[in-house]
Parts: sequence; C-alpha cells; structure tokens
Amino acid sequence: MALIVQKFGGSSVADASRVMNVARRIIETYLKGNQVVVVLSAQGDTTDDLIEKAREISENPSKREMDMLLSTGEQISIALMAMAIHRLGYPAISLTGPQVGMKTNSCHTNARIEEVDGNRIKAELDAGKIVIVAGFQGIDENGDITTLGRGGSDTTAVALAAALNADLCEIYTDVDGVYTADPRVVPKARKLKDITYDEMLELASLGAKVLHNRSVELAKKYNVNLVVRSSMNGNDGTIVREEALMEKTMIKGVAYDKDIARISIIAVRDIPGVAYKIFKLLADAGINVDIILQSIGRGDTKDISFTIARSQLMETVDLINKNLDYIGAKEVNFTHDVAKVSIVGAGMANHPGVAATMFGALADADINIHMISTSEIKISCLVRWDEAEKAVQAIHERFGLAEEELE
Amino acid sequence: MALIVQKFGGSSVADASRVMNVARRIIETYLKGNQVVVVLSAQGDTTDDLIEKAREISENPSKREMDMLLSTGEQISIALMAMAIHRLGYPAISLTGPQVGMKTNSCHTNARIEEVDGNRIKAELDAGKIVIVAGFQGIDENGDITTLGRGGSDTTAVALAAALNADLCEIYTDVDGVYTADPRVVPKARKLKDITYDEMLELASLGAKVLHNRSVELAKKYNVNLVVRSSMNGNDGTIVREEALMEKTMIKGVAYDKDIARISIIAVRDIPGVAYKIFKLLADAGINVDIILQSIGRGDTKDISFTIARSQLMETVDLINKNLDYIGAKEVNFTHDVAKVSIVGAGMANHPGVAATMFGALADADINIHMISTSEIKISCLVRWDEAEKAVQAIHERFGLAEEELE
Repeated sequence: MALIVQKFGGSSVADASRVMNVARRIIETYLKGNQVVVVLSAQGDTTDDLIEKAREISENPSKREMDMLLSTGEQISIALMAMAIHRLGYPAISLTGPQVGMKTNSCHTNARIEEVDGNRIKAELDAGKIVIVAGFQGIDENGDITTLGRGGSDTTAVALAAALNADLCEIYTDVDGVYTADPRVVPKARKLKDITYDEMLELASLGAKVLHNRSVELAKKYNVNLVVRSSMNGNDGTIVREEALMEKTMIKGVAYDKDIARISIIAVRDIPGVAYKIFKLLADAGINVDIILQSIGRGDTKDISFTIARSQLMETVDLINKNLDYIGAKEVNFTHDVAKVSIVGAGMANHPGVAATMFGALADADINIHMISTSEIKISCLVRWDEAEKAVQAIHERFGLAEEELE
Repeated sequence: MALIVQKFGGSSVADASRVMNVARRIIETYLKGNQVVVVLSAQGDTTDDLIEKAREISENPSKREMDMLLSTGEQISIALMAMAIHRLGYPAISLTGPQVGMKTNSCHTNARIEEVDGNRIKAELDAGKIVIVAGFQGIDENGDITTLGRGGSDTTAVALAAALNADLCEIYTDVDGVYTADPRVVPKARKLKDITYDEMLELASLGAKVLHNRSVELAKKYNVNLVVRSSMNGNDGTIVREEALMEKTMIKGVAYDKDIARISIIAVRDIPGVAYKIFKLLADAGINVDIILQSIGRGDTKDISFTIARSQLMETVDLINKNLDYIGAKEVNFTHDVAKVSIVGAGMANHPGVAATMFGALADADINIHMISTSEIKISCLVRWDEAEKAVQAIHERFGLAEEELE
C-alpha cells in the first residue's frame, strides 16, 4: 500500500462535470489499494472573482483580509470534491489548511510553511478515507489564515508529501509533462521521462510554467518524488527527482521568457561598492533582478546591465534616475524589445562546446545575441523580442531534442 | 463606554456599495466611544449559489461537507467588511466562527452553540479594533466547521452578546422594527417601542419574520437586550427585553400564517395512548406539529386535529393513512384552505374578554372560525385561507392598535 498525494489545479475542477471526472480519477488510485491525499486549488475563475470583489471595496486591501477572502475559494473546491466522491460511493473528507495543521509564518499573501502537523490527515487515512485538502492556505501562530502566494497549491502538495512521507506526489496540470520546449512553439518538442530537481528549477524560472519553483525547491529539500502529468489523459507524465535515471541526455530543454526588460546603467565609476549600492536599492524596492552583467572597465568607468520583469520596468528606471548621483553613474538606458532564450541540462557542465553549439544555432538563424549568462546547468541569451520563438526552434533543432525518442 | 453587538443580514451587504454603507454605520457607533462587534451573514444570493453548486454534484450531499461549503459565504462578507472599514480609515479585523471559539455540537447544518470562548474578540477589542465576526458558523470538538441552521446569524449575534456581556445587541434588518401587524396588510400598523421576549417568541413563531426564534430564546435565557432596527434608516427600532417598560398595552400585535395545513383524524378510539402513538409517529418522521386540538369523545371515539407546515401536508397524510390500523382510526381528512390568525400580548392573561373581543371582530367581519387555540399570551384562530388578511385588519381595528400612538 502506497501513500500518494495528488494535486489538481483550478481548471481541473472548474465545474461540476470536471469535479466528477477528477473524483473518478482519485477513486481509481484509491481502488488500487493506495492511501490518497488530494490537494485542490480554487475552481476556475473563483480567485479572480474574489480579487475583483476586494477591488470594488478597496484599492489596497489589507493582506490579512485578502487571505481571509481568498482562502474561501479552495474551501469551496474541497467540499464539492468530497461530495462528488461520496456520490460515487467512496469515503472522503475535506480539510482546510488550518485543519490539517499547515503552520506558516505570518507573511500574509506570501506565507512560508514552517511546520505540518499531519495527525488529522493520518487519522482520516487510517479510517480508510480519501482526504481532500485545501491548497494554498495555512494558519499562523495567532490562528490567522494565511495563503502561500503564487503556485501555493503545488507547494501545499509537496509539503504534505514530505510531512506524510508519501511515496509519490502527483501534480496534475493541463499539460502532459515537461517538454523539451513549449509544444506551441516547437511542435516536435518531446516529453521528458524524467528530469532532476535542479534542471526543473532552471526550467521553471526560465518561463516553463509547469511547476512553481517553491514546490520544486521543497521537493528537492525533502527528496519528494514528484510527477507532473495531465488531468485530461492517462499518459505517464514526467518524473522530477534527485537524479534523472532514464534520460542521460545533455540538454533537457529549451525555454524562453518574453516577459522581461533590460536596463543598462552607463558609465558608473569603476570602484568597489557600486554594484552593492545599485542592487541594494532595487532589493529594498522589491524589484527582482534576474541576469546581471558587468562590462569590463573602460578607463575609470564600466557599464552594468541587468534584466527584470517587464511590468517593473518604468518603476525601476525612475528609481535609478532619481539615484544617479548616489550611484555615481552618468545615465540609464533600457529596452523591452528583448526576450530570454535558455537551454537547461545537468549534463552540459561535462560537455565542452554546448555554448558554442547554441550560439551557432542562433547565428545560422541570423539572430543577434544581446547578452549572455551561464551557470553550471544552463545558458541564457537575450535576443530580440520577436525572435524568441525562432530562436527556440533553431536551438531545439540543432541539439536534436525531438529525435531522441525513448518511448 | 458600552460594548455593542451589531448584526447585518445578507441583503445589507449584498454588494460593494452596501458594504460601504454598513461600514459607515458601524464606524458611527465606534466613534461614539463604543466597543463594536459586528456579525455578518453571507452576501445576497451567495448561499443559494453555493447550494446550487452542491446540487450539481449531488442530490444528497453530506451535511458536514455542506457546512464546509456554506461557511465560505460569511467568510467572504467579513473580509470585505474589514477592508471597507480600513478604507474609511478605522481599525478592524475579521474573524471566522472557529477563530472566535464558537463551539457547537456536531449536528451539522443545524448545530447548537455549546460554549463561546470570547478571548480572541476581547483581545482585539482591547486593541481598539472593530471586530467583524462570521455569523451562522461554529466549530465542533473535532475541529470541524458547523453551521447553525436558519436564522443562524441572529443566533451568533445573541450568543456573542451573552458571552461578552454586551450592553446591547442590535439586529439590523430590512424592516424598522416589530409592528402591531404586517404593514403590507394593515397600513396603519404601528411600530412597537418595546416587546417582551415571550411576546416576541409568539410573534416570531406566528409568522412575523423579523427575528428567528432561537435567537430570541437565547436572548431570554441570558437576558440580552435586543434591538430590532432597519439598516436603511436611523429610526429607533423595537427593543426586546424581559419586561416591556414603555408599552403596557394588553395586545402587542396581530400575526398570521398562511403557510399551514390542517389534518383531522376521525373517530380514533377514546382510550389512553392514542395521542402518543400519533404524535410519536409524526415526530419520528421529522414533522413539526403546531396547534393540536382533540374533540370531546362521542361514544367511544373522538377526533384529533392538528396543523402542520403546508409543505409537509401530503407526506403527513400518507404516513397516517399507512398507519390507520396501528393508530386505531377510521379515516383522515385534511385541507390547505386554512390560515392562522393570532393575537399576542403578555397583558391578556389579566384582562378577561380579550378572546371574546377577537371572536366578535371576526364575527362582525363575517369570518368563520374553524379551530381555536389559546395560551397565556396568545390566541390563535384558524380561518379560511383567503380571509386571513381581512381577519388581521378586523382584529387590528377592533383592538385599536393603530391609535395608541406613543411617539
């Protein structure tokens, strides 16, 4: 008998017929003799509707009250799912985040899990029930309801899998698994059988919207076996684990992100402490910086460039313009005509020439590279915004990702 | 400084602008130097929408899961109200039933309050905050969410007022207060300044839909000062308390109920235990009986008549027909062409002739009386269904209820 945690997103439970479908799927797993814990998100547009209700009252609602409001969405889903399983003749019980002892800090709307008291869940599982848990939500030490922020339900599922020492944590989404590239851009993209936590982390932060980073980090920390699979079909999905056992390929996938902008601070003085000043300023303003590049000094000045989320561009430019003297820089320039294209693979560190192959693919496609950033397991290039898809296709083709059929 | 509990129903918080209006009203009370605890129902049609969601999944959903589902409605209201008060610049915090320690038994969808742990509320009041509490909901000893059934939010408000030893519990509704008769039927009906708990109980159960009986019973038990007033205007409302101090009138009001039916069981044997058999049968089937009348025996048989809710008529008739032999009766007859008209007043016990006055008013209006039932503080008559309003008008006029203007 295995203990399996299954997470279903909002679109999988958007209406009554989808709830019934997911219920059948859950019961299938249960009837194989497994103990099953299910984590659900809010139905379809429920969260957006609740946010709209808050907006009608206040432009800047208290975060504590937003958590009070938004946590109702998942509570509705779990009650309906328990009813659906009952109707199909099987035992089930729904539990909220507070009820399962999902203890978090008090950072409302973006709380971190501190401890999971799985006793209630264990008791219900031992009583033979399918346990349906509200994702995304927890409780702080004051007894206040908190929410976990973006991707929170994935994080709930992984945290429960870790606390309950589950054999498997299945994340059901609207895609089949993790692909070598976005199939909408590269129709021949291939589904991966498995991928390491680190590769998944790079792919996630690079714009592949399959799993939220926090859930992958947590899975890595507690060595939880994750599977990403489709709620629409019975296909195998992709396993995320410490070591990729099946696929020893060098490059796992090509990702891209068009939601970025590039800022360059020109002619800052080439003395110690300048980078600290700049990035402390940005951090204090809550601006997340992705790639950072610093040019080699020319004379007594150098240029510092970095990328940020597109939505924060003007705010960031304003902030730096106001602080040009403090930073000791001459001017700022910026563009949103950029996209980031990346290749990810734990194998690349031991394979010289990977970067060259990628740059060659771009050159042959006549795509100019504006910035380059590398790590142990990824290489990212900035290209022109409207060339992102073409770049992904060229790279995917050059590395022969589609052809390596293992199935 | 007084401690005031204010309860607002679902229509008072149905949309953003009404929420803002109620927020202003709450702040008014707060600015007079009072501590304020607010109890809210779910917005407008929210509860009906949630029930519909459950119906789409299951015709007979688990009561525990219904409570899980429905309790989200009030939680949405309280979060929005706290945001509204914040936006107007005042401190407020929302709390769910479980968070305020509203402890109930485990009778899901119709739970009874067993204990109220007011510590969290007291702490927030002491910190200067307006406390917004979700009505209708509680928590049982397993940590499961329960709901209190019909009129549950009124009951929550009174229970909190009792537990916190509040100076006043204000129930805001869509009417100005308690009237001597339904103003739609008797345009000259007068609003009462005050009324006793017992009178209010009789009026409520007689079809005046102002306050739910359970809340009045609870108020009587803990001697909570209740005020019923409108959320639409600043009028004084009606005080419900142990003794009516202002109005010493004999008759407080005339009520009617058209939602009833009458059943008669003809020629049951006139021996001990027959009534027990009948009403045990009905009680076991969950059928609530109102008026019961037993004729004087004729020979060795007698007739037993009673009234029930109109919606349960056929079910009740079927049940009795199936059990005629067991009961030892000859036949059943029934009608839904009846309505109950009642007068209520604690003073009537000491005033002979009240019943005669009522019967005289009906006789002069040419209205036939089909059944009569009396208690210490009320007299009810069954009349023809389509004569109910005319009966109320005639009685209201005869007792001169409109003329006794005290204001």
